[in-house]
Amino acid sequence: MRQSQQPSFIRKDFPKDEEAYNAQILIRAGFVDKVMAGVYSYLPLGLRVLDRIENIVRKRMDELGAAQILMPVLHPKENWQKTGRWGDLDVLFKVIARDKKEYALGPTHEEIVAPLGQKAVASYKDLPFALYQIQTKLRDEPRAKSGLLRGREFLMKDLYSFHATESDLESYYARAIEAYRAIFRDLGLDAVLVEASGGTFSKYSHEFQVLIDAGEDTVVYCEKCHFAQNKEINDARDGDPCPSCGAPLALRSGAEVGNIFQLKQKYSEPFGLAYRDAQGEQKTVLMGCYGIGISRLMGVCAELFHDDRGLVWPAAIAPFDAHLIVLSGADAVVAQEVRRRADALYDSLVAAGVDVLYDDRLDLTAGEKFAEADLTGIPIRLVVSQKTGDRVEIKRRSQTAVELVDFNEAVPYCIQK
Amino acid sequence: MRQSQQPSFIRKDFPKDEEAYNAQILIRAGFVDKVMAGVYSYLPLGLRVLDRIENIVRKRMDELGAAQILMPVLHPKENWQKTGRWGDLDVLFKVIARDKKEYALGPTHEEIVAPLGQKAVASYKDLPFALYQIQTKLRDEPRAKSGLLRGREFLMKDLYSFHATESDLESYYARAIEAYRAIFRDLGLDAVLVEASGGTFSKYSHEFQVLIDAGEDTVVYCEKCHFAQNKEINDARDGDPCPSCGAPLALRSGAEVGNIFQLKQKYSEPFGLAYRDAQGEQKTVLMGCYGIGISRLMGVCAELFHDDRGLVWPAAIAPFDAHLIVLSGADAVVAQEVRRRADALYDSLVAAGVDVLYDDRLDLTAGEKFAEADLTGIPIRLVVSQKTGDRVEIKRRSQTAVELVDFNEAVPYCIQK
Repeated sequence: MRQSQQPSFIRKDFPKDEEAYNAQILIRAGFVDKVMAGVYSYLPLGLRVLDRIENIVRKRMDELGAAQILMPVLHPKENWQKTGRWGDLDVLFKVIARDKKEYALGPTHEEIVAPLGQKAVASYKDLPFALYQIQTKLRDEPRAKSGLLRGREFLMKDLYSFHATESDLESYYARAIEAYRAIFRDLGLDAVLVEASGGTFSKYSHEFQVLIDAGEDTVVYCEKCHFAQNKEINDARDGDPCPSCGAPLALRSGAEVGNIFQLKQKYSEPFGLAYRDAQGEQKTVLMGCYGIGISRLMGVCAELFHDDRGLVWPAAIAPFDAHLIVLSGADAVVAQEVRRRADALYDSLVAAGVDVLYDDRLDLTAGEKFAEADLTGIPIRLVVSQKTGDRVEIKRRSQTAVELVDFNEAVPYCIQK
Repeated sequence: MRQSQQPSFIRKDFPKDEEAYNAQILIRAGFVDKVMAGVYSYLPLGLRVLDRIENIVRKRMDELGAAQILMPVLHPKENWQKTGRWGDLDVLFKVIARDKKEYALGPTHEEIVAPLGQKAVASYKDLPFALYQIQTKLRDEPRAKSGLLRGREFLMKDLYSFHATESDLESYYARAIEAYRAIFRDLGLDAVLVEASGGTFSKYSHEFQVLIDAGEDTVVYCEKCHFAQNKEINDARDGDPCPSCGAPLALRSGAEVGNIFQLKQKYSEPFGLAYRDAQGEQKTVLMGCYGIGISRLMGVCAELFHDDRGLVWPAAIAPFDAHLIVLSGADAVVAQEVRRRADALYDSLVAAGVDVLYDDRLDLTAGEKFAEADLTGIPIRLVVSQKTGDRVEIKRRSQTAVELVDFNEAVPYCIQK
């Protein structure tokens, strides 16, 4: 993508109306725009990061045998009354339409997916199966001050599984844990599996927490044996002995990037989601649900992967693989030759399938271009200038060393990453 | 995708609570599920069709130099008050949150994209540019009886362009018309360019209408010279002379699949979206907007591409390229060999990059499998059975002829399409 032909949302300063670092840096670097508290637009760079996160998640959902669907934002009130959550769930946004009917805006989708699941189930032979979506959720959060870590509108991957027996649900739940571990590993994140209260969802649940200071949760954590419980279900204090190994516990801040629940009959019961077993008896379907905060993950990565000059994206979720910068200088004849060479390199990179952002803008100084590249945080920076002659300067965003390589080496370098 | 491992949402009968054929057939064939009037879930088959439509649209947006973004569903009331549409737009859903503040649910995004655009514009050098999204829109439609042709919640591609001069806006508008023609051609649709009133959007507008009986619009159309105006701006009657060529006009029903507007200053003005020109003077940015109904297009295709046995998808937007059916029969030894051969063909197709739906279910008769395949409407049907021996039966959904080909010919057949 040629930067000369695209709008730039980079800002000279951090926004003043954001308390959270992740939102500050993502806004300043032009990845997101704040529409209001807890509500953001994802700009071209930010949407690319979200797409890469989604692809990593989707791959593991496919491996779990789950089929992708897309459920709506607007929900019938009756569905939420059936589960008792119309009155109970304080984050539920409600809408009154012109027909005077009330609707809910989906903060989660058990109330839609349970009656949907019923349409595919008659007998035990129709089970198990799993459905997931990557979709926009709305929650009426009173304190949306953590940037992308707590949105009133956010992107979530929610997976729902349907089972005939407890043991089948449990074995899928175990497989989902492994899939989640793989996802966070692919994303370059160290996520801790934490026991938690099921809240309004269920009694049995686990969270995946990334232990960062910006996190809104508190995790009771044992560094030695990795015992971990949410503070909601364990009121231990710093230094108390670990109930598992006796080593001293620590209280750590965590950002919940995933949560999984054995819902069992909780949502299938109210919707009559049942199957006929081998003996012809009607039984209630057992459900599990498994969430991952897609946009929250971008916020967590911004909290983790940065230095004082800007973002430092891991290759797996960077908006581009490489950032090519041309410095054409003041001399018109030289400038033409330098640009010709940079254009040729850009074309080679694109042809080789490298996602490359090309800073081909004329009206910025070298210092401005380098500062913007550091802020943007793409893993590999390539510079073509009069100084680099018939070679290309290569620098990794995460390192200080600069290398000069031949033109024909630059493309394979970016492919290996 | 192996059908034995996925839920089936196919129904024996048409739903009784839908008036529109597109919704009836898409529900019956398991592409969508009705949540309530005008609100649908997209099931695995339906989401695949939407994905293919989106890819066709995205390709042409990229060619137009537009960058993809994602704006929110939830909008601040102030933005809609600034343009006067908080009170004026009757389809605007409104939400009152716990903080007692009111919000709008986006039926369109001028109120979000205009202030966003301002953040990328200082001087004339920052123009032109274009931003688009594929996103969920909400509209409080009082009569949502046309299935996917008029949703209260629907998927739309909306593109917004930003210009310094009228001539630049006009030339982009002309390029957008060509991009739209290419999109509808890629989709296999004959869409007519129709002059229309801008409604609340602008004075200048065009629509792309697919002339089908199920369409909710009326188009004054001349078959001879292709003069076409929406009935809203032309009260001609059937047989009146065409104002352009004199041939008799016809009144035709149309489904609006695209609409384009030269908004000019209409939305930039209220948000102070301005630039400094070469002389240092402040000027208002000119905008254009360009919509395509992504989920409506699926509905239009369902209205157009079907016969009395079910859907007949064009290859470009079919949920899968090929539908492989194995008929293993009653004899256990024969069944094992037939399944082994079908499995091997499935693996070869997947390895060759063919998107293939594999009906490997054991408990359906040949008749049931064929009926479901016809209902689903995938372009190529492949059958492996005892009867086909060491060959494969191939049939196109749109044709009646059946061919027997060698196993090693089946893969290239599906790749050529």
